[in-house]
Amino acid sequence: MKRLNSNPKQDGFRMPGEFEEHRGTYMIWPERPDNWRFGAKPAQKVFAQVANTIAKYEPVTMVVSYEQYANARHMLDPKVRVVEMSNNDSWMRDCGATFVVNDQGEIRGVDWYFNAWGGLVDGLYFPWDKDDAIAQKMCELEGCDSYRLPDFILEGGSIHVDGEGTVMTCAETLLRPESGRNVPNMTKEEIEKTLCDYLNCTKVLWVPEGIYNDETNGHIDNICNFVRPGEVVLAWTDDVNDPQYAISKKALEYLESETDAKGRKLKIHKMYTPKPILISKEESEGVDAVDGTLPRQEGDRLAASYVNYYTGNGFVALPIFNDPNDQKAIDLLKELYPDRVIEPIYAREILLGGGNIHCITQQVPKGNKKNV
Amino acid sequence: MKRLNSNPKQDGFRMPGEFEEHRGTYMIWPERPDNWRFGAKPAQKVFAQVANTIAKYEPVTMVVSYEQYANARHMLDPKVRVVEMSNNDSWMRDCGATFVVNDQGEIRGVDWYFNAWGGLVDGLYFPWDKDDAIAQKMCELEGCDSYRLPDFILEGGSIHVDGEGTVMTCAETLLRPESGRNVPNMTKEEIEKTLCDYLNCTKVLWVPEGIYNDETNGHIDNICNFVRPGEVVLAWTDDVNDPQYAISKKALEYLESETDAKGRKLKIHKMYTPKPILISKEESEGVDAVDGTLPRQEGDRLAASYVNYYTGNGFVALPIFNDPNDQKAIDLLKELYPDRVIEPIYAREILLGGGNIHCITQQVPKGNKKNV
Repeated sequence: MKRLNSNPKQDGFRMPGEFEEHRGTYMIWPERPDNWRFGAKPAQKVFAQVANTIAKYEPVTMVVSYEQYANARHMLDPKVRVVEMSNNDSWMRDCGATFVVNDQGEIRGVDWYFNAWGGLVDGLYFPWDKDDAIAQKMCELEGCDSYRLPDFILEGGSIHVDGEGTVMTCAETLLRPESGRNVPNMTKEEIEKTLCDYLNCTKVLWVPEGIYNDETNGHIDNICNFVRPGEVVLAWTDDVNDPQYAISKKALEYLESETDAKGRKLKIHKMYTPKPILISKEESEGVDAVDGTLPRQEGDRLAASYVNYYTGNGFVALPIFNDPNDQKAIDLLKELYPDRVIEPIYAREILLGGGNIHCITQQVPKGNKKNV
Repeated sequence: MKRLNSNPKQDGFRMPGEFEEHRGTYMIWPERPDNWRFGAKPAQKVFAQVANTIAKYEPVTMVVSYEQYANARHMLDPKVRVVEMSNNDSWMRDCGATFVVNDQGEIRGVDWYFNAWGGLVDGLYFPWDKDDAIAQKMCELEGCDSYRLPDFILEGGSIHVDGEGTVMTCAETLLRPESGRNVPNMTKEEIEKTLCDYLNCTKVLWVPEGIYNDETNGHIDNICNFVRPGEVVLAWTDDVNDPQYAISKKALEYLESETDAKGRKLKIHKMYTPKPILISKEESEGVDAVDGTLPRQEGDRLAASYVNYYTGNGFVALPIFNDPNDQKAIDLLKELYPDRVIEPIYAREILLGGGNIHCITQQVPKGNKKNV
């Protein structure tokens, strides 16, 4: 498959909303013992549950290292396609390709440079070369060409689009030098132009910050999501003593003050977070201590949010935490997605690794059909 | 994808002739320096030429180790799909899946046990676990279920079928304990039954021996091939002083004495071999010497044969050797395959590794269409 030097906007390709119809979903099998406790065995069970759940609705490809191939094949539903692929960790949203489509239903990949959420400035592990190679390999598997951006650092979890010209991201992720992405090498205007060229958008919404203590430098996909064009969910708490309160309030005020690419005011739904979730002693002790990898220490607050759900063909896969607000989240999504089955999955184990269901999935769009 | 405990005959699946229409071709990128001289760089050029030639006619998937991925992607035509897959060496014919089809065009894989041409008795390298895992991974990539035979050792190069009930193999490969396959654990009758069950055949043709000095223990695909049902080519020499003469004569007498599954006498075309090809000093010195891998010594005679050609959609890829008989082979194939383009490829480099174009390719059948 070819590597392209043009960009999707020039070529008439756009990134569809996640809620548009999918060809399928990609995931990566977890295994690194310095991030996942107990040799990743508990995480593998939950990843398998997520994959097997999604496979009821659309094709799932699980990519797996050589070493874990047989075990993953054994644990996954036969409907899931298992493909060998080297990796550094299991965050397909962030290192995987961002797929774009044209009006003829042709798909292409955007292969951003991946540097493990901040590279040598603020990255979570080193090296990240295997993860950075994954986007191209997905495109080869799907038989599509790709746009490679060796000089622009982006993770899929730091963007959400409405498919109609609007991209939403967090200033915390993309505009601070401390985040180890493109600043100070690029200006805000250059970053906006790159996002707009490669996603085919005309408007960038800059939510100030992500979820409190999110190790990704505030990925948008943990705090805010497009339900459909013109309509978003926002992670929320009413507890003024929680540092999350000020963050969510600023985001709300920003979003209320803005319009999308089509000039619409956004309809904003508050999605209540669970109460603070801390790493337990046992959970901390199950993780290998390795220099250069972010430690998992007892008492650390995890970036738990229901907004990190994944939308697919006829379903929404929702992380839950055995918290009173689980039901609120389920009820809200039932109301917002009346035509989809809400699939709640107990996901503390994914959260312990630093993300959730949206972070471990990446959609391949169908292309030529809308299914809002 | 599922692992099946039944067999293709029970389930109404058969192995089509190679000359029937393909969905595509799989190959493995060469790299091991104890088999391929000069770090496999000369071999990679020829493998790329083979892949790029086939890709003019049908989809090609090149499977490649993590380490060689970027280099292979660089050297191959963009039309070739490149997929990461661990391997021990590059003989896709022998370790890859044998695909079977049913009347509805559904395909499945047969995943024989692969032991590097003889295991601990007479194998060419150790270990062979990565190669043995390749067949299943191909089936996952193709999205099809597979039959696994952990107790039956077979390489794809040791069988040819006519797609109408006849399988052809060599007694030298499958019936001698010295060959390190299934004898003495199985009787000839048990071996015949297994071949017939998994290829959906009713008649096994036992050519006595393969090409002189063939390190595979006499694979059929180097000495004899079905052009179409009822018609074969046979490697031949008129030089009575060449040890190949007696081997080819015995094969001719055997084939003349037999009928196929449909009761037809076979039409046999003699395909003249090139004159003996020996490993040069320079070629021998370019190969790493490693205990447990077959050495490549100066003066060793290579198992050169034009019969090791590969038949695909609208083409035949033919190994040539810069020998006067090259043209004879081309002319014969032009006559036998009037509707296909004959693509001669100078293939001494593949031969140096122990096989040829047929040994490094494996077809995935289209399924429901015949294209004899």
